[in-house]
Amino acid sequence: MEFSSKLLEKAVNEMAQLPGIGKRTALRLVLHLLKQPKEQTRFLTEAITTMREEVKFCRSCHNISDNDVCEICANTKRNQQIICIVEDIRDVMAIENTGQFRGIYHVLGGKISPIEGVGPSQLNINTLVEKVKSGSVSEIIFALSSTMEGDTTNFYIYKQIQECDIITSTIARGISVGDELEYADEVTLGRSILQRVPFEKFFKNN
Amino acid sequence: MEFSSKLLEKAVNEMAQLPGIGKRTALRLVLHLLKQPKEQTRFLTEAITTMREEVKFCRSCHNISDNDVCEICANTKRNQQIICIVEDIRDVMAIENTGQFRGIYHVLGGKISPIEGVGPSQLNINTLVEKVKSGSVSEIIFALSSTMEGDTTNFYIYKQIQECDIITSTIARGISVGDELEYADEVTLGRSILQRVPFEKFFKNN
Ligand SMILES: [Zn+2]
Ligand SMILES: [Zn+2]
Repeated sequence: MEFSSKLLEKAVNEMAQLPGIGKRTALRLVLHLLKQPKEQTRFLTEAITTMREEVKFCRSCHNISDNDVCEICANTKRNQQIICIVEDIRDVMAIENTGQFRGIYHVLGGKISPIEGVGPSQLNINTLVEKVKSGSVSEIIFALSSTMEGDTTNFYIYKQIQECDIITSTIARGISVGDELEYADEVTLGRSILQRVPFEKFFKNN
Repeated sequence: MEFSSKLLEKAVNEMAQLPGIGKRTALRLVLHLLKQPKEQTRFLTEAITTMREEVKFCRSCHNISDNDVCEICANTKRNQQIICIVEDIRDVMAIENTGQFRGIYHVLGGKISPIEGVGPSQLNINTLVEKVKSGSVSEIIFALSSTMEGDTTNFYIYKQIQECDIITSTIARGISVGDELEYADEVTLGRSILQRVPFEKFFKNN
């Protein structure tokens, strides 16, 4: 691609660093900004910059938050003894949208994946295990995607806390095996929270 | 979509203003930036901001440029008497990539489209007509997309300059009717420049 402007070329190249955005798409987006008032570009870049610089991760559940502790963890009307374990914050958003869950979350930040070089130490597992061992948790709901990595991660965590006197369950498999949690429809996802099954039972059935 | 952070929500909403970027995609892009070092976000936002604030449009051909006059117009080795009329700068880039054209361009900035409310006065037509009437032009090549809007725009311009003693042509219709110019392959596009036909002949054939 031959650019008539180095400034344009640089903007397109930076935009094309984003996942799923090729050079053609990047050029289309940048040219769109050029046609809009300068304010729109300022609003966009300021919103992204402020977000990146100032956003925090809840020190309790690792959800994205504007404060040290997120609104869900800080909400005393929610049952702080029931923890739903999810892969990332999009899953928190998806489950919150169902309106079916009144406990709190624990965001792992990924799944154990030997192929992608992600081990347990790179995930937020220790803080979860500590919390469970401290005795403040009565139930754990595993809500990872039902992929091999998801099952591996579930099982790794389960082994660390199986001595503790808590209920463990996984969300009901109403969601197709292999599908990403965040793309499930709200009804299916809500039902799978309500119909969660004991973790032991899940393993025996498999 | 329920966000656990206002900063995140704002960044996603601004990103989703871009054409073809829905909220889900915007969230994916923003979360990607959160996983990358802060520098990447800074590089991205600075490149976009600088581009938007400092990029210029060539005062002769309206191409995007880092200077008052673009590199193509300033290039004395190019034939300044042959003007290729295009819709936007992506078409300039596409034709430059063929290496078949050694004249200069005139970027209209769109097509006449009554449906989208784009009239001739919103396009860079006057500067083109003035240039032709000044006698510095020997040939005009119409290289708009072969859509109804493209044909309307061609014809509107043609009527304004038909009294002038110049050659007018359109690029050969090797490109499928209705297809966008920028997606044509280089060989087809290059050939259509070389095999351009007199504008009058094009109208008689239609
Ligand atoms: Zn939290
Ligand atoms: Zn120029």
